[in-house]
Amino acid sequence: MFYLLIDVLGTVAFAISGVLVAMEKKLDVFGVFIIAFVTAVGGGTLRDLLIGNTPVGWMRAPLSIFTIAITVLLAVVFVNYLKHFRKSLFLFDTIGIGLYTMIGIEKGLAVHLSPVMCIALGTMTASFGGVLRDILCNEIPVIFRREVYATVCILGGFLYFGLVFVQVPAEVAYSIGIGAIILLRLLAVRFKISLPNIYRSSR
Amino acid sequence: MFYLLIDVLGTVAFAISGVLVAMEKKLDVFGVFIIAFVTAVGGGTLRDLLIGNTPVGWMRAPLSIFTIAITVLLAVVFVNYLKHFRKSLFLFDTIGIGLYTMIGIEKGLAVHLSPVMCIALGTMTASFGGVLRDILCNEIPVIFRREVYATVCILGGFLYFGLVFVQVPAEVAYSIGIGAIILLRLLAVRFKISLPNIYRSSR
Amino acid sequence: MFYLLIDVLGTVAFAISGVLVAMEKKLDVFGVFIIAFVTAVGGGTLRDLLIGNTPVGWMRAPLSIFTIAITVLLAVVFVNYLKHFRKSLFLFDTIGIGLYTMIGIEKGLAVHLSPVMCIALGTMTASFGGVLRDILCNEIPVIFRREVYATVCILGGFLYFGLVFVQVPAEVAYSIGIGAIILLRLLAVRFKISLPNIYRSSR
Repeated sequence: MFYLLIDVLGTVAFAISGVLVAMEKKLDVFGVFIIAFVTAVGGGTLRDLLIGNTPVGWMRAPLSIFTIAITVLLAVVFVNYLKHFRKSLFLFDTIGIGLYTMIGIEKGLAVHLSPVMCIALGTMTASFGGVLRDILCNEIPVIFRREVYATVCILGGFLYFGLVFVQVPAEVAYSIGIGAIILLRLLAVRFKISLPNIYRSSR
Repeated sequence: MFYLLIDVLGTVAFAISGVLVAMEKKLDVFGVFIIAFVTAVGGGTLRDLLIGNTPVGWMRAPLSIFTIAITVLLAVVFVNYLKHFRKSLFLFDTIGIGLYTMIGIEKGLAVHLSPVMCIALGTMTASFGGVLRDILCNEIPVIFRREVYATVCILGGFLYFGLVFVQVPAEVAYSIGIGAIILLRLLAVRFKISLPNIYRSSR
Repeated sequence: MFYLLIDVLGTVAFAISGVLVAMEKKLDVFGVFIIAFVTAVGGGTLRDLLIGNTPVGWMRAPLSIFTIAITVLLAVVFVNYLKHFRKSLFLFDTIGIGLYTMIGIEKGLAVHLSPVMCIALGTMTASFGGVLRDILCNEIPVIFRREVYATVCILGGFLYFGLVFVQVPAEVAYSIGIGAIILLRLLAVRFKISLPNIYRSSR
């Protein structure tokens, strides 16, 4: 029940990030909906395709499509007020990333993937929606250029497997993994931590 | 037999729309073929991937690849004459959209998806080819910016399920669905109907 | 064993081509890794998705992800020295294309696709990684604009099926197919052979 709430909040945050990028590109209302939808379900869709889990998740769960539709409607109408919720949205987004990473890892374990592949799957679940959003809007994906977004998912994944390895019960490790991803991202953004610059020498 | 003819005409129209966009970008002849191919089969491929219907459709049906190859050959050679067929091509394209939407809905029903998901699947079948075409040519997909293309597929899908709900036989509803999509699109283009502008307030 | 070595060399060459494009776009180190990864495994992933071979190949074979990680690390650190290896890299890349085309054809045969579809699958296996690399970096894929890359895969595929048709043993035809692709590409690049220009008349 608690995880369902997180899932809905994450979906809302992901969808709104899609709405904002799409509206910046002046897409029509259908385009805005599609970008919001793709941002919210893209990661889980890629995950399900790669492991052969079809029909993919959102097709079997009507909740996400309705959540996204209502979110888009409200976001488009009240777009000028969205800036007041920037902090809440960032928090929901971060919580969503934590949850989606761990869901991806869980699904990888269910098809007997190795830990490294599970972590790759979890990271894709959390980040591919944003990649698709940016490709559809004709931008180089933002997560390839800045932010430690994906790095944080990978660290959280390793923490989870480390905890399980030292006999921490899986459910506890699961919650700690989510919490660690949330905390790390908040810290990274707060202290403007980014990946080491690999271009110094070329300047 | 009749539906097969529609399918071929739709494939031709989709492939030609790919040829035109690719030639505008000055791609080489292989690039033109791939864009035409992707435009024609992209929607059905995404549909088959999402519902786990593999190998995907075009791999099991040699007709489409040959239809597309011949279409590309003729379109490249006679590209200067294509403008005389603009109206026929638009008609074939519209007929194709109607048919592909309903084929997608049918495939969704076959794997027990809910009506809303079937309509989403049908709309993707009809429109994702054009989305891929535009992404590969480095453009924001045209259906996100103007035209009521996808909206018309969605309306046709709801009409189909409405008719089935009031006990109209499925085959009759199927044909009416295709016809409605064709008619609505012709009307929308004829009377320049577009989605409501959501950017008025921001100007 | 010999094929495994070719596979690793091809993976290295593909990954480095990803690193170079990504660094030109000034992506961060995570972005560089993802582009390298996608370039190296994208073709095989599309192939496995289209024929329903899931979880896709790289998820079941940890070798590729480690090969790519080490390649990226070395390529980023020694990027200024990469130009000295340009010829070796081009050779590895070409060998990789030959091998991946034939692997794709083999996988197509395993799910009973027709020869034409097997050749399409082989060509996609060899070339889709580069297409994804270019899309993610917001470029029109280079293979749609110049180079006979994909054409060479198609010719090699037809040669393979021709040889099998005249009763050449499959393993022999397999090796000849790989060799022919390598040879044709080297010749095409050496003598600057390209596809016929389809734009003369429009100038």
